[in-house]
Amino acid sequence: MTTTTTTTMVQCSRSRWGCPRGGFRGASSVAARSAAQGTSPRLTAEDVAGIRREFPILEREVHGDKRLVYLDNAATSQKPRRVLGAMEDYYADYNSNVHRGVHALSAKATERYEEARDKVARFVGAESSREIVFTRNASEAINLVAYTWGEENLGEGDEVVLTVAEHHSNIVPWQILSRRKKFTLKYVRLDEASQTLDLEGLGEAIGPRTKLVTVGHVSNVLGCVNPVGDIVALARSGGHPGCKVLLDACQSVPHMPVNFSELQVDFAVCSGHKMCAPTGIGFLWGKMEVLEAMPPFMGGGEMIQDVFESHSTFARPPGKFEAGTPAICEAIGLGAACDYLSDIGMHRLEEFELEMGTYMYEELEKNIEGIEIYGPSPKQAPRAALAAFNVEGLHATDISMILDQYGIAVRSGHHCTQPLHHHLGINASARASLYMYNTKEEIDQFVAKLKDTIDFFGQAS
Amino acid sequence: MTTTTTTTMVQCSRSRWGCPRGGFRGASSVAARSAAQGTSPRLTAEDVAGIRREFPILEREVHGDKRLVYLDNAATSQKPRRVLGAMEDYYADYNSNVHRGVHALSAKATERYEEARDKVARFVGAESSREIVFTRNASEAINLVAYTWGEENLGEGDEVVLTVAEHHSNIVPWQILSRRKKFTLKYVRLDEASQTLDLEGLGEAIGPRTKLVTVGHVSNVLGCVNPVGDIVALARSGGHPGCKVLLDACQSVPHMPVNFSELQVDFAVCSGHKMCAPTGIGFLWGKMEVLEAMPPFMGGGEMIQDVFESHSTFARPPGKFEAGTPAICEAIGLGAACDYLSDIGMHRLEEFELEMGTYMYEELEKNIEGIEIYGPSPKQAPRAALAAFNVEGLHATDISMILDQYGIAVRSGHHCTQPLHHHLGINASARASLYMYNTKEEIDQFVAKLKDTIDFFGQAS
Repeated sequence: MTTTTTTTMVQCSRSRWGCPRGGFRGASSVAARSAAQGTSPRLTAEDVAGIRREFPILEREVHGDKRLVYLDNAATSQKPRRVLGAMEDYYADYNSNVHRGVHALSAKATERYEEARDKVARFVGAESSREIVFTRNASEAINLVAYTWGEENLGEGDEVVLTVAEHHSNIVPWQILSRRKKFTLKYVRLDEASQTLDLEGLGEAIGPRTKLVTVGHVSNVLGCVNPVGDIVALARSGGHPGCKVLLDACQSVPHMPVNFSELQVDFAVCSGHKMCAPTGIGFLWGKMEVLEAMPPFMGGGEMIQDVFESHSTFARPPGKFEAGTPAICEAIGLGAACDYLSDIGMHRLEEFELEMGTYMYEELEKNIEGIEIYGPSPKQAPRAALAAFNVEGLHATDISMILDQYGIAVRSGHHCTQPLHHHLGINASARASLYMYNTKEEIDQFVAKLKDTIDFFGQAS
Repeated sequence: MTTTTTTTMVQCSRSRWGCPRGGFRGASSVAARSAAQGTSPRLTAEDVAGIRREFPILEREVHGDKRLVYLDNAATSQKPRRVLGAMEDYYADYNSNVHRGVHALSAKATERYEEARDKVARFVGAESSREIVFTRNASEAINLVAYTWGEENLGEGDEVVLTVAEHHSNIVPWQILSRRKKFTLKYVRLDEASQTLDLEGLGEAIGPRTKLVTVGHVSNVLGCVNPVGDIVALARSGGHPGCKVLLDACQSVPHMPVNFSELQVDFAVCSGHKMCAPTGIGFLWGKMEVLEAMPPFMGGGEMIQDVFESHSTFARPPGKFEAGTPAICEAIGLGAACDYLSDIGMHRLEEFELEMGTYMYEELEKNIEGIEIYGPSPKQAPRAALAAFNVEGLHATDISMILDQYGIAVRSGHHCTQPLHHHLGINASARASLYMYNTKEEIDQFVAKLKDTIDFFGQAS
């Protein structure tokens, strides 16, 4: 904690995001109390109030005087002062290209960039920071695996098993590759009663030609948490001897403690912008021996050892997969986001979101006539703090447009899961998704205004 | 100008990078004067002083009390308050995912993201903003062309012509692709006397099997400006009927007026971080009909029209090539950088750098015994404001390490051009590279300290 506090003070003295409006008090006070008590107390309303002060955008009003109620966190999260301050410091103090210079700025930028990699590695339980490859976003991370491991290991007759609930980013790269390499995509459906992954169906889909099982950890629409242990066991026992498991952890890592090494998957991908980090940064985690065996993806500076006219030799991972000047400031911002989330405590965050998600689900069920919320009920299974839904006789887009007039930001559309929406027999849904700064009052406001909207449309028709 | 001024005021009232330390005075005052006079006056010392106040990092001291003299601009530029302010505004006011939401934040983020694309398009003379594809960096932009246009159009017996002076990012992607597609890479050498591109050699290299000519606009080591018109003419007259020309414009677009449509190339790539924009953003420009015909690169959200289990249909360019959540804030920062540079005036910037580059070259030649500066002399040809050099009996790394102790940041190494260094018979060089905020006093200081360094090593040996 001493180190963290020192850094905080330095940033406070420099930063727009600093002390006058509370500095890093939100995260720090929670973390300090946790350390003092040696336990993991629940996030209190006071903690959440402190956390809210960390996020400048939450003070914003929209459409004139409507206080922003931001319930679109599954699309992207807001950013705390600590992350913004780390980025400001980068540009004001040591902006420089990395890995190639001996001058003071370049040395500091390189150190901080690699320090950020260490932070990310610790945050997701990597065995080494060399297992973390920075990418622009999770989509790029999946495409990287497709263009390297997939290019080399998938061919005619092979099978890639995925679920109908995958995000487009975990479908389209495999479709594109399968056109060239002629392997088969096998989709696993949902268990009809619970609208969760049909594990039995997964077991049946996996066979000796299955070279890859690629699944989301938490569905961005259904909210269900997939049983990674069971999935890995099925892949290992029923798949090809070299069968790999890729985990799309975009909706889990920001919201619960996740340890990729313990989960025993082979690859995992995350986007930074969903976990308090800036846009323009995400990462691939891969087991070191798997990364080492993969051919390079993009060519350029950084990823080489030596370049000759006829050929090149390549750096070891992760450099091998990071061609050109990286998103340096963004990686440093992601490192600061990992610090911020760690200080709050991922177990507490998970517990808080479980409670809040259940509250939102139950309030919607209780108050909104004709609502259908997709995925399991919180009584059936623990689920993420999000609700994708439709209301009888109302289009999802109308719901989000009208809520927006009250300052309430929810998303509508297919949420990059068209096959899932087809499977559910719908074209679109509205979705409210929470994070650590949301309050029960905000949920109440959302539910009340949704009710008003329905009444308004009911009267109009 | 009115619009610009208004925007400036809004940012000033909000931003750490704002009024107290001069706001956007640098660019604004120069631009205002230009507008008032209706001419393009030279950048004066006063203008440069104003510009310097725009860049917070230039106030920094390194190694205790040494004022930073930043001469590593060919590696990355520093960022003005206007760019930093635009990014702050994004996170404080309207951070949201783009293209997928109807709520106020998402609408504003989408509008500003696409506005940034318009600004970039105008800045480089694109015929439509749809010709601008945002990437992480220039390396990704070249790899995008290799993985799409190259994948579809290059095969056994075909030739890709490039020069020995290319940056690794314009060599390695073609090497990687050529291993799979079996085409030939043909390198053009330098004219020995002038150390510029051997245009005659280029003409000889291009033949009816040449499907691509890919060259840098300005060499990051030699400083020479390649004659794009001649190169295009040779490719069109001597190459395959479908021969394309790709221009690596990383070292030109930040420093001189460049219009890709007028240059009549087919593709061009740029990195944002070298032109006052943040890290994590670059772009590909391509002729619309060429982009339209290209298959997609990475799969994911944003780049699709409709996703089914069996296949997907794709969005039109540029969306087709932007999979996943883009680097939203970074693109907006790049748009602000284009505004900043436009307000200074690219013709004036070019003129200023020509003068400063010549001054640096001549001072080095005059004062440093045993120096060899690579590339043409400014008397032979206009050259970029950079000098890559070696000094007899001194290693390049030692030069930059010792200069660093005086606060002077120059780079040493191969500058991502190993084949060029092999061709020049050296392993490394030191490089000083200028931008609009550098002064003659800084150049004098650099040359004086370089002289001290040489004297020090001379005494020691």
